[in-house]
Amino acid sequence: MITMTGMETMIPSGGWFSTRFRVRFAETDAAGIVHNSVYLVWFEEGRSELSRQLGMPYSALEEAGVELLLTRSEVRYLKAVRYDEEVEIRTRAAVLKSRAMTFEYQAVRVADGVLAATGTTEHLAVSKINGRPVRIPEPFFSSWKRAADAAAR
Amino acid sequence: MITMTGMETMIPSGGWFSTRFRVRFAETDAAGIVHNSVYLVWFEEGRSELSRQLGMPYSALEEAGVELLLTRSEVRYLKAVRYDEEVEIRTRAAVLKSRAMTFEYQAVRVADGVLAATGTTEHLAVSKINGRPVRIPEPFFSSWKRAADAAAR
Amino acid sequence: MITMTGMETMIPSGGWFSTRFRVRFAETDAAGIVHNSVYLVWFEEGRSELSRQLGMPYSALEEAGVELLLTRSEVRYLKAVRYDEEVEIRTRAAVLKSRAMTFEYQAVRVADGVLAATGTTEHLAVSKINGRPVRIPEPFFSSWKRAADAAAR
Amino acid sequence: MITMTGMETMIPSGGWFSTRFRVRFAETDAAGIVHNSVYLVWFEEGRSELSRQLGMPYSALEEAGVELLLTRSEVRYLKAVRYDEEVEIRTRAAVLKSRAMTFEYQAVRVADGVLAATGTTEHLAVSKINGRPVRIPEPFFSSWKRAADAAAR
Repeated sequence: MITMTGMETMIPSGGWFSTRFRVRFAETDAAGIVHNSVYLVWFEEGRSELSRQLGMPYSALEEAGVELLLTRSEVRYLKAVRYDEEVEIRTRAAVLKSRAMTFEYQAVRVADGVLAATGTTEHLAVSKINGRPVRIPEPFFSSWKRAADAAAR
Repeated sequence: MITMTGMETMIPSGGWFSTRFRVRFAETDAAGIVHNSVYLVWFEEGRSELSRQLGMPYSALEEAGVELLLTRSEVRYLKAVRYDEEVEIRTRAAVLKSRAMTFEYQAVRVADGVLAATGTTEHLAVSKINGRPVRIPEPFFSSWKRAADAAAR
Repeated sequence: MITMTGMETMIPSGGWFSTRFRVRFAETDAAGIVHNSVYLVWFEEGRSELSRQLGMPYSALEEAGVELLLTRSEVRYLKAVRYDEEVEIRTRAAVLKSRAMTFEYQAVRVADGVLAATGTTEHLAVSKINGRPVRIPEPFFSSWKRAADAAAR
Repeated sequence: MITMTGMETMIPSGGWFSTRFRVRFAETDAAGIVHNSVYLVWFEEGRSELSRQLGMPYSALEEAGVELLLTRSEVRYLKAVRYDEEVEIRTRAAVLKSRAMTFEYQAVRVADGVLAATGTTEHLAVSKINGRPVRIPEPFFSSWKRAADAAAR
């Protein structure tokens, strides 16, 4: 039973949900900067946080028998980020369809406000039983709809 | 001094250079499949291998004072890959300009020949000293040109 | 010039410095739990945080021309940790010699207070110029000494 | 049904099973060397390879309802390894009891034969159903026994 705590959640302005953390040493590479693959890990945490703040943790979706399959990712690398720097990941639900959705991301270097990277991920809702596309179940759909509407404004 | 061993290298048909390895357990996630960020690590190994097979290891480019900055990555996830499965990464130089280049990738599940993912990365040649865009130096440019010509055929 | 903000820092009881975060999806493996290698990444963040809280960020040590080389690591895995769970990493300076030090760690599952893992890392101070062992420079030595004394009490 | 191909496998001298690969760029850190956590990933591949060469892939053990839980890991870091260098991971079954086993590892830099790291991992056989310790099932036990006997000689 999923408690619909999400329905009353405040949606941040522009639909951007935010989470912050420091760059780990293990996330850097021999070029002295954050490795390019790490942004996909951060963006994943961004959408985890969005769902958590909406009161709809991703684990609850899984319990409802539905998985959000990643079908496409894109990252644009603008500025390097280094060890120990604080990073803000901003995430929004850019597009929401009955069976699919798109998230958008910004990675911001907190100290100087510089936009380090942007990204997009596309997802398809599938049944955990047979892997076939399914409708995004309630209350997830309505909750993400509110977030997507705020993003579109 | 860079020995131009690359000039005599056979370019594989279609310009696709290939490398194979088994999926590591650490590369999987709790969904039981290879984590989405790992494909960027594999594609990076794909372009390392392309350069190595051309006799132009990436380290030699760095010694020439030039870095190939990653500016954009894109991955399309088609089929899941699991622990212990053998994967072939196919890489080609899709576009080559004086200061920039694009690589294309295919990740193939060796056992059944299924295409698991495709991808693209875009790069900009910059000076290691001041980070400004520079021409891709010889003999790298000519070598990648041969690879890109084979890819365009 | 290193500001000695560290000299006035409160040392937590037992010398245990603490940092918290949620388990990332990318940190899990196909067994559904956090991959064994991830604890070393977390412990590294633990000692980063210890130094940060002492006002002695690790980057400042590097600027002083000294590196703390990792020479040995040990992890004891007690209980599994899963995606989205909150983890507290507790770190203390267990042993401090003129050229070497040992950190001890505990990874605690915040929800139920269960000890998930313990660990130890041993380090040797070396010159960044020639890699030879050197004395841990001031004010780092005195700062870590206070932390190690609190741990020994 | 597990085919006992393992019973006829040649055990390498000293019981050391071997696998090789090149260091990936993503495995390096801002110190320019392979990150300390990566050795645990490599050692895991080492024991995967040992089981594979014995004709007893780890996946078959899982199908038999048994998991080899990691209970302790130790790494001694002797020499740094860098991007693109070839590494040989040597693995042997050091101790085998009815419900537990210990693997030992060596990471060797192929170019100069230098020993870069050594390690140990300890494992407990548990039921996949209830997590309780169980006997290592046949034909895995006999197969690993032959490997451990060769290591003890």
